[in-house]
Amino acid sequence: MVLPLRLVPRLAAAARFPCAPRPISRRAPLVLARAMAASYSTGSGVDRRLLFRQLFEKESSTYTYLLADVADPDKPAVVSPVLPVLGILGLLIDPVDKTVDRDLNLIKELGLKLVYAMNTHVHADHVTGTGLIKTKLPGVKSVISRASRAKADHFVDHGDKIHFGNLFLEVRATPGHTAGCVTYITGDADGQPSPRMAFTGDALIIRACGRTDFQGGSADLLGNSILDQIFTLPKDTLLYPAHDYKGFTVSTVEEEVAYNARLTKDKETFKTIMDSKCLQWLCCYVHFLSEYPRSC
Amino acid sequence: MVLPLRLVPRLAAAARFPCAPRPISRRAPLVLARAMAASYSTGSGVDRRLLFRQLFEKESSTYTYLLADVADPDKPAVVSPVLPVLGILGLLIDPVDKTVDRDLNLIKELGLKLVYAMNTHVHADHVTGTGLIKTKLPGVKSVISRASRAKADHFVDHGDKIHFGNLFLEVRATPGHTAGCVTYITGDADGQPSPRMAFTGDALIIRACGRTDFQGGSADLLGNSILDQIFTLPKDTLLYPAHDYKGFTVSTVEEEVAYNARLTKDKETFKTIMDSKCLQWLCCYVHFLSEYPRSC
Repeated sequence: MVLPLRLVPRLAAAARFPCAPRPISRRAPLVLARAMAASYSTGSGVDRRLLFRQLFEKESSTYTYLLADVADPDKPAVVSPVLPVLGILGLLIDPVDKTVDRDLNLIKELGLKLVYAMNTHVHADHVTGTGLIKTKLPGVKSVISRASRAKADHFVDHGDKIHFGNLFLEVRATPGHTAGCVTYITGDADGQPSPRMAFTGDALIIRACGRTDFQGGSADLLGNSILDQIFTLPKDTLLYPAHDYKGFTVSTVEEEVAYNARLTKDKETFKTIMDSKCLQWLCCYVHFLSEYPRSC
Repeated sequence: MVLPLRLVPRLAAAARFPCAPRPISRRAPLVLARAMAASYSTGSGVDRRLLFRQLFEKESSTYTYLLADVADPDKPAVVSPVLPVLGILGLLIDPVDKTVDRDLNLIKELGLKLVYAMNTHVHADHVTGTGLIKTKLPGVKSVISRASRAKADHFVDHGDKIHFGNLFLEVRATPGHTAGCVTYITGDADGQPSPRMAFTGDALIIRACGRTDFQGGSADLLGNSILDQIFTLPKDTLLYPAHDYKGFTVSTVEEEVAYNARLTKDKETFKTIMDSKCLQWLCCYVHFLSEYPRSC
């Protein structure tokens, strides 16, 4: 399924340079931020189509991801087959309410047009920024899985594709932390980023995984989700979780297959680990409500 | 200058897989971590030579960077023209004492041979991890600028090159936050990462810069360092600072030229901003010693 986005075509607002009346030794060139964004990307070759930023919210240790297709800033990017949308189209994955202003300011500075504010799942440890974003930018559409039973403008199911410009994300259902968890993965096709990138939410965390003791959590489901939907990706796939508590920013499928402290165990041991963690979390919840640990 | 590294050639220890007696649905393949590391990189093409990891220390909001050349894991990588060193050679920039165990464990898992533990400058807000690293891995050499007047195994000056495998970092003097600050920049040559990457320490911070009120700090020097040594890099150069307090992980030269809140001002305004910040920092220091702000 291609998300049925319907937006009135309009040019992305060109962010203006801050005033620089007398620079120290040279004058910053006056360029449109929209054109400037075309050069903001990591990697070379195909990857230069993708503008990618990883953003951190310190209190809940949450990562928000900004993605945009900056390959052809002057060409209308077709999001919907019916109505092309002009501008450099961007999307946010797992925005946090407290950092919405930071994220939207960055998006403005980079000259992007935000089209989607997406969640990998319903978060229990922080308030999603999608609601606030929609009040500030009414054209933005929120996206979440249908299985989450949450409110959103668009619901996605396993196998759906979310297009932004000429790039797309594939949706894979990865339940277990919650019943509605999904992983968004960059496309498997010519012209898409290489290596692939998977935004795993709270399903797979670097060297760990999400807790399974509430919101429809299930150790059985989570183990199968990770093994069947994430560990089957190419081994060089870059893994970007929704949280990290130890200061890691990225991992790979190959690395987690080898070193994930929980997923390298057999199924029974994995379940035992998760059940014992559930007991720990319950004890913490009862005795130390203010220190309720999150996905760890 | 090429750093005169002299290490007895030896194979990098091949990290072992954790035992996985009964995986949930499949058995992880037994591979040497050394070979595995060859696929850990971001980007495509030339960039696939570079293994790159950004690591965060939350208390001091410090970024540590791990770089390694993973292009030819089976070929001896020449660090010194006299003695080739076998293995996948890695280096750390700005390690923090509190996260040394995390960093060394990751290096072991990735099958790397750490050769350099480098600092961009003498840090006032956290203890460098280089000393602790050297006690745990005696073969590692510490690196800092000669102008820092700090202790280290190797001192670098403006224009020096630091080779690791077939990649190298260029050293640029960027004083102003301290008298001995340097920026390490990936090489400007065929086969080196594209776009270039600059590790700016506390000289340039995303949308800001380092404080200039102690350790030989100078607003004049810092402004010139950033404009002459960093803003003259290609506009798509990725900028990785030693700290970030707002959750940003990377910027670009083009972005900072346009939007850096301080460096887009004229020289006098920049100096006024930095002087007023110095006064703020002094007040904070006198009245709120425990909340002494860092480079912000």
